[in-house]
Amino acid sequence: MTGTKDGERAILSRARDALRLEAAEVERALAGCLDAWPLPAGLREAMEYSLLAGGKRLRPVLCLLFARLFGLGAAAAMPCALALECIHTYSLIHDDLPAMDNDDLRRGRPSSHRRFDEATAILAGDALLTDAFVLMAGTRGVPPERVLEAVRAVSAAAGSAGMVGGQFLDMRYTGKAGIGWEQLAAMQALKTGALLRASCLAGAMLAGADPEGIASARAYGEALGAAFQIADDILDATGAEERLGKPVGGDAAGGKPSCVAVLGLARSRHLARAGADAAIAALRGRAGETADLLRGLALYTVRRLE
Amino acid sequence: MTGTKDGERAILSRARDALRLEAAEVERALAGCLDAWPLPAGLREAMEYSLLAGGKRLRPVLCLLFARLFGLGAAAAMPCALALECIHTYSLIHDDLPAMDNDDLRRGRPSSHRRFDEATAILAGDALLTDAFVLMAGTRGVPPERVLEAVRAVSAAAGSAGMVGGQFLDMRYTGKAGIGWEQLAAMQALKTGALLRASCLAGAMLAGADPEGIASARAYGEALGAAFQIADDILDATGAEERLGKPVGGDAAGGKPSCVAVLGLARSRHLARAGADAAIAALRGRAGETADLLRGLALYTVRRLE
Repeated sequence: MTGTKDGERAILSRARDALRLEAAEVERALAGCLDAWPLPAGLREAMEYSLLAGGKRLRPVLCLLFARLFGLGAAAAMPCALALECIHTYSLIHDDLPAMDNDDLRRGRPSSHRRFDEATAILAGDALLTDAFVLMAGTRGVPPERVLEAVRAVSAAAGSAGMVGGQFLDMRYTGKAGIGWEQLAAMQALKTGALLRASCLAGAMLAGADPEGIASARAYGEALGAAFQIADDILDATGAEERLGKPVGGDAAGGKPSCVAVLGLARSRHLARAGADAAIAALRGRAGETADLLRGLALYTVRRLE
Repeated sequence: MTGTKDGERAILSRARDALRLEAAEVERALAGCLDAWPLPAGLREAMEYSLLAGGKRLRPVLCLLFARLFGLGAAAAMPCALALECIHTYSLIHDDLPAMDNDDLRRGRPSSHRRFDEATAILAGDALLTDAFVLMAGTRGVPPERVLEAVRAVSAAAGSAGMVGGQFLDMRYTGKAGIGWEQLAAMQALKTGALLRASCLAGAMLAGADPEGIASARAYGEALGAAFQIADDILDATGAEERLGKPVGGDAAGGKPSCVAVLGLARSRHLARAGADAAIAALRGRAGETADLLRGLALYTVRRLE
């Protein structure tokens, strides 16, 4: 599938358009996802400020695509897709806090604690994380044992043995010399990889994929997650501020270890490309538009670097 | 059941002993509940520092008792019981943060951000909240649709329309004059009432209670939650430091509105007693040891004030 440059370009171009459509559908559903229950107006404002601040919506799109790959429509997979974006958003709000990365900007706007205050930012994050499970548990049209399996995969990926554990290690490593690539890769696999992988897995689980399908989703998600994080490190080292919404080199300036700092730009690019290839390989033998889209998404992850 | 003082005393005394046994069983299970998955050692230390710091274990005990009242044993209900304590513990850690109530002490020991640091306290709370759903989703021996129903009840009670929403309102009301009893009661119903009610509900749901049973659990939990919060306000105004593990009047000194401040001590005592009576009334017609224990627990809530 990646044999010729022309073939790649065509897949990439079709994928980009289709992914924009998927993301737009997620965007519409996100805008109404807090309407189902009453909550204090000020808290809602803070939650929506961060939740509706744009972004690629990569996690929900992955969930929807893997659900569709195994035969489940967007309506049934959407609550889980929205939950994944709520969890991602909470993690950004808490990561930005003064006691954590102390970032004033997020996606080009004041971060939550700068726009509101610290207490509100902590609570908006707590609420988005918790409400994610309200959304998932309200899934309709999927057998409950599958929903429960997805709840387990998503919570495990977000919790102490996943994203929170990764952020904890990240804090420990920040400003420390001598962090090697293995430590760094293991930390990033928890911090960003686990939830990206769970996004793919949860979609496949909700759709009732067989063990081989589940293994495909896991392998794709794991490889994509690795490629994605390395690509982010490269963009942070080389990219333009408007693309990330914060100053170039901001993370490195704060003493954050990164792939680029540890391995250099050339090896980082190589690893990102290898990750995208591995993601594409995980879908070998799967035909159809959705599989092509997922291949295009993997390509896009590294192509945005060029 | 509360007709005679002697009858009350006997129920109360038996209940206290039995509840200690229940709490001890919860304690044992809590000590091992993070063993099932790998997590960074420092994060685990911070999570267990707060999780294993003692406490009445009221929420898990309520869950286990309501499960047993409707025929489900402790082994099947325990993951949910532990999850409730994890969620309660996370809320204490985050409430104590400098940006929130800024409490240096919790249960007579340094609060999490004082013992560790702020970032660790935020992450330990995030992890306990998230891992609660890993625990619940791992429930064995209960039909998945019931587990999912309990996940929904617990997450809704903890989220933006429950505990987090209540804490948000509490922050808004702190230091503000003119907060009336209705506003205060509504805030406390969210902040502490919702999770106490959900503890009862989740036990009943896991056990597959019929609608009447569910209604009983809800009414008991709601009344007990109200009584419990008022009793805490009374203890804060009058009690000894060693009972709460923080200075007497500490909340009031920080400008926190409380039942005692708004209604006075006498009306507060009356309301607490009325709440306990309403909880007992919600169990009318239910015979057996477990129902008696729950009646005893409601009595204990207000008797500890005397």
